[in-house]
Amino acid sequence: MSRPPRRKDNHKISRELFVLTYGALVAQLCKDYEKDEDVNTWLDKMGYSIGIRLIDDFLAHSAVKKCRSYSETADMIAQVAFKMYLGVTPSVSCSSAAGNEFSLILDKNPLVDFVEELPAERASLCYCNLLCGVIRGALEMVHLTAEVTFLQDRLKGDAVTEIGIRFLRKAEDRKYRRNK
Amino acid sequence: MSRPPRRKDNHKISRELFVLTYGALVAQLCKDYEKDEDVNTWLDKMGYSIGIRLIDDFLAHSAVKKCRSYSETADMIAQVAFKMYLGVTPSVSCSSAAGNEFSLILDKNPLVDFVEELPAERASLCYCNLLCGVIRGALEMVHLTAEVTFLQDRLKGDAVTEIGIRFLRKAEDRKYRRNK
Repeated sequence: MSRPPRRKDNHKISRELFVLTYGALVAQLCKDYEKDEDVNTWLDKMGYSIGIRLIDDFLAHSAVKKCRSYSETADMIAQVAFKMYLGVTPSVSCSSAAGNEFSLILDKNPLVDFVEELPAERASLCYCNLLCGVIRGALEMVHLTAEVTFLQDRLKGDAVTEIGIRFLRKAEDRKYRRNK
Repeated sequence: MSRPPRRKDNHKISRELFVLTYGALVAQLCKDYEKDEDVNTWLDKMGYSIGIRLIDDFLAHSAVKKCRSYSETADMIAQVAFKMYLGVTPSVSCSSAAGNEFSLILDKNPLVDFVEELPAERASLCYCNLLCGVIRGALEMVHLTAEVTFLQDRLKGDAVTEIGIRFLRKAEDRKYRRNK
């Protein structure tokens, strides 16, 4: 099967419209759920549903090959996926001796263009938690299980925004072990 | 004051991510509100809040001049704003002898890429009603009052998607008349 052509410009839309629409989504969830933790959970769940669908689009349009290591996968997320979907490229660093924990560091978070700071009563809100869910969902579809969380957030006064990805045992490994 | 430079590519993001995030927003509202009419109202309200903020971005980046007629305004929405924010250009037709009603006709609606059809129990849902609110809000910020509604919707089996814009008396006219 031949690979579909690279996406054209008409697959792009304005970031501003997206950022404001995302803001409306977060605001609606804040209206629905009093606790920040519940909003965070919902954003993550929604992101997960998006990620498991977005992966097909990613594989079809990115022309990437199978990654052979967690490190390659983290680089792929930062350099190809973030670039393709959000127009930014986070830097990547490995943060564990075991080689299964990585940080994506964003100097600028495109999702918070119109957000000055979180309101005092929403201090525990992970405003961009959707992104964690998207990454987690997309990874799961390529048989990689990972915990994805915000480790630092400029909205909360940190110097940068940092997303932590901790790869867990591969799904097929677990299955293999269960079947033994 | 000099005009800011035209937006660069890094102001664009992937349409797929936007479309899936918008879908999550609509799904959340459908969970919150049983009646389609309530979901439609909320989408319109959210769109309005977005429109009144997006207009600044539009004026800063589109380099458009003041429109001198409703017809010019409708063309501007279709040819500049839709193109800039959604990457598509609807066709425009005037649908009233008085020259204050216009239709924007979309052969392809970029917001419904992943939506096959509305579920049977959501037959009255105006899935993209956010767009009507955005247009209404943005127009109000340039002192134009308008009713903006979906007249046809491919999601409901129509041949095209048609957004109707009916310009009402200008806000400054009303003010002028009140002050006389």
